[in-house]
Parts: sequence; C-alpha cells; structure tokens
Amino acid sequence: MNFTKMHGAGNDFIILEKQNIGDLGYSNLAKAICNRHFGVGSDGLMIVDKSDVADVKMIFYNADGSIAEMCGNGIRCFSKYVYDNDIVKSETFTVETLAGIKKIKVSIKNDEIDKILVEMGKPSLNSQDVPVKTDKEKFINEKIIISSQEFNVSSILMGVPHTVIFVSDLDDDLINKIGPIIEKHDIYPKKTNVNFVKILSRAKIIVNTWERGVGRTLACGTGVCASVYIAKLLNFVDNIVEVEVPGGTLNIYIDKNDNVFMEGRAEFICSGKYYYKDYLKNF
Amino acid sequence: MNFTKMHGAGNDFIILEKQNIGDLGYSNLAKAICNRHFGVGSDGLMIVDKSDVADVKMIFYNADGSIAEMCGNGIRCFSKYVYDNDIVKSETFTVETLAGIKKIKVSIKNDEIDKILVEMGKPSLNSQDVPVKTDKEKFINEKIIISSQEFNVSSILMGVPHTVIFVSDLDDDLINKIGPIIEKHDIYPKKTNVNFVKILSRAKIIVNTWERGVGRTLACGTGVCASVYIAKLLNFVDNIVEVEVPGGTLNIYIDKNDNVFMEGRAEFICSGKYYYKDYLKNF
Repeated sequence: MNFTKMHGAGNDFIILEKQNIGDLGYSNLAKAICNRHFGVGSDGLMIVDKSDVADVKMIFYNADGSIAEMCGNGIRCFSKYVYDNDIVKSETFTVETLAGIKKIKVSIKNDEIDKILVEMGKPSLNSQDVPVKTDKEKFINEKIIISSQEFNVSSILMGVPHTVIFVSDLDDDLINKIGPIIEKHDIYPKKTNVNFVKILSRAKIIVNTWERGVGRTLACGTGVCASVYIAKLLNFVDNIVEVEVPGGTLNIYIDKNDNVFMEGRAEFICSGKYYYKDYLKNF
Repeated sequence: MNFTKMHGAGNDFIILEKQNIGDLGYSNLAKAICNRHFGVGSDGLMIVDKSDVADVKMIFYNADGSIAEMCGNGIRCFSKYVYDNDIVKSETFTVETLAGIKKIKVSIKNDEIDKILVEMGKPSLNSQDVPVKTDKEKFINEKIIISSQEFNVSSILMGVPHTVIFVSDLDDDLINKIGPIIEKHDIYPKKTNVNFVKILSRAKIIVNTWERGVGRTLACGTGVCASVYIAKLLNFVDNIVEVEVPGGTLNIYIDKNDNVFMEGRAEFICSGKYYYKDYLKNF
C-alpha cells in the first residue's frame, strides 16, 4: 500500500488514504506500520478520510494501536499532506477529528507551504476537568513537595492533562527524575504530562515535556500550548510566543477569548510502498 | 533518492544503490536517513556498489554515521536485495565487505527466497585477540564475581568481542543489571557484547544479547554465532543449532574446520523515495 512519512518538530507520522487501503483493521495496521524495527516506524498513523461535516477527516492511531482524539504536531503534517495532494483546495480549511472540527490555515512562501496554523481550542482550568485532587477550584502555582524539594506547579486540561513547572535551568537529571514522579503523583488520578519551562523573554520560552506513558519527547504540541497559556496567566509572557522544543520551533498565539493557536512547520520524509502482507505473514 | 527498508530478525536496514546516489557523503547520509524521527529510521545503512574482487560490494554504516566492517543480519538483507533486483545472477555469490569476502547461498522456495546462508568465518579464542586481560591463553568457562555473585563466562572474538553466559532462566532483571556491568568490566579493555544463553536441547538454544554501546537488541548475528560456538566447545550442543532471538529465528552450522555459518530470513518492509534535500534544509 502507498504510504507517506512526515514529521512535525520531530514527532513523526505515517499518512495513508482510506480510498487506497479500504476498511481493514486500522489498529493492527498501526501497530505493524508504526513498529520501528518491523514496520516503517513512526509515533503514529493518520488516515485521510472524507468528512460530512468538514473539508476532510483525520483518523489518528498511536503506535500501540490505540485510537487518539487529536495530535497537534500530527494535524500539521496531515494538513500539509492534504493541501499538497489537492485533497483540499484552499489555504483555509477544516479537519474533522474526534476532538471536534479544527480550523487550519496554511501560509505559502515561494509557492510552497511554509507553516501551518491550527486552532487548538481553549484549555480548562477547572481542577475536576484536569483532573487533579484538590479542594481548590483551580490548581495554578501551587506548591507540591517531591523528595523533600518544593516545586510550584500549575495543572490544566489542554486536550489531555498538563502540568507546568517553571525552572531557571532545563537540567536533564532533574527532568528525568522529577518528570516521572509528578506524572504518577497521587493528586493526578489520570496521571499528567509534565512540562518544564524556561522563560527567555516575554516572547520566547523553551519547553521540555515528559509525556505521560512515554517519557521525554522531541515535541508535545498540547504541552507547548499549555505552557504558554500558564506563562501568560502568570504574566511571564505576552500573547505571541515562540517556543523552542528539542525537535524544532513552534509559535503560539492566544486570542482575546482564550483560544490557543499553534503554528509550525511540517516536513515530508519519504513516501512509497509498504509491504503489509509480507509483514503479517512473516512476523 | 530511491530507498528500500528491510529487516533480518528485527535488525532493520536501509539499502541504497551507489549508481543512483553517487559519491555524496555517506556518513552524514547515514545519520540523516537512519534517524528514527527525522529520517526513514533504521539500525544501519547499506550501499550496493560494484566490486573488483567479488560479485558485489557492501558498504555498511551504523545509524551514528560510523562505518562498520560487517553485519550478520545486514548481509542477509543485502543478499536478498541484490538477488531479487538481479544485481547478482546465481544462488551462490560473494560479497566484498571490510571484513573480507563473504560467501552467500540463497535457498529458494515457491520461486521466492526462503533463507540466506552466510559464511561468518572462524572465531579467535586467543585472549589477546578478544581482548581480555588474563594470564590464560583462552578465557573459556572462567569465574568472575559481580555484586558478590559468581558467573561462569567465556569470551571470544567473533568479528567483535563476545562474552557468553549460560543461564537456566532468561530473567530480564538479571540481563539488564548484569549485562552493562560485564560489558564495561575492567578485564575487557575494548568492552564486550554479552550473550545470555539458555540451552533447550543439543539442537536448540535461546540467546538474548546485551550489545556493547547499545543495550538489549532484537538480534545480534555475531552474538548468536559466538553463543553456539561456545556451547559446542563446552559440549552442550551439536554442530547444527536453531537459535531463538527476540526478533526471530536463526540457524547456525559449524563445519569441521570451525567455520561458522548463519542462516536466516530477510524481509522487505517498504521502498520508495527519500527526500534527503528537504531534510537537510529544514533540520
């Protein structure tokens, strides 16, 4: 079957078109094609489908075969794919996802897509939504103690639970030690992603994310959105922020209604034929 | 540029043809194309070239851009590729590598390659060759003490340094704890791969390898050869042995002259176009 591999800030995805592959079991297909050694290898699989409510529909599977609602870095790759392959015909279009209909705007430079802007929606600050076990309505800039060290943390729901910690130094040892402890802390019944954030200016920050169930990653789209949102709430930054992540650069905008927009690049890596039958036969 | 991705027992490789790509810097190309997130992703890169001394030449790079002499799982993939693409014309042929000329025999079943046999050569038992720091000429079935626990180890040079330990139970915790300690033990000045071997019968064993500088892997071709060689030396097995590794099954034969032959399958995963220029521009 025909496939394309792309990445957004180092988060890599395989894209297939439903009209080419039909209705075979996507969960098993995702496990096979995303496998790094026996398959093409990627963080996730996206399938392009027709939509009745938007210009196009994105079906997203994680590498473990589980379905996911949305993926910020993924939808940029998906958007570049459908634009470059003439599946959508305009520079602004809508994508149906399990997390709702997402508005997309591609910006063109020298006849090529330069960046893709995605409306990521509004976070919820309600403690029950995150969820975080606390008497307080919101859990912003609260002290927690880990290994007798005090940390100020803020937790919100940006699609998934996100906790943000501001640090003066993005020390690998600290992130690798504290990340998994906070991820599985008793106060987070559904666990939490943990974002370590260093403020460089009111318009620029660095984010290193410890992803729930995954560990350190090159880029977490919703984590970057949550980090900027909290940084703005605490008045560390303004509403237009450039974010450096290990896999690249993302730009975040927050509008007057608290809607978060993420803009960044997406790159084609390779495309060709994947021998799915051979794989199943021999694995 | 055109690429093909294959795997042998879960060890995965990208294959390119020199006639298609020319003489560009292969070390940088290997780092880019083998990268799991920004490239196609693989353990290594093999380039098909013409040979003056054999039927075909294999140029092998690790994912980190370093050149390697030979790779047992790699050369099976390489051999299937050159046979299926009519680069060689017979079922027995020779491949030039930095570790010498290797003899190959493919076996055909239903008009397709079933397995590929590779002559892996003769190991050296000389302690100075391995190398291992000892007064003894050979280091076979010797006691070493790790965390006040006693282990019987045997170390030989099978292309690279290999140490073999026979265990009654392939316990993950033991392998992950003892593997790295033996790998970096003072007696091995160039470090060592560590193979944990469970004997099932005189014709079947299981091997789990802790690879030097890498950690646990799905399959280590030279490690499997070293494991069978030592098992035969200690009279645990005969000279025809089936070996289960986490990534698949390999068959090892040892002839009267101590030459080791490895046979196994190789699988196509995908093929297509890799956008190398795009990658360099945007990374």
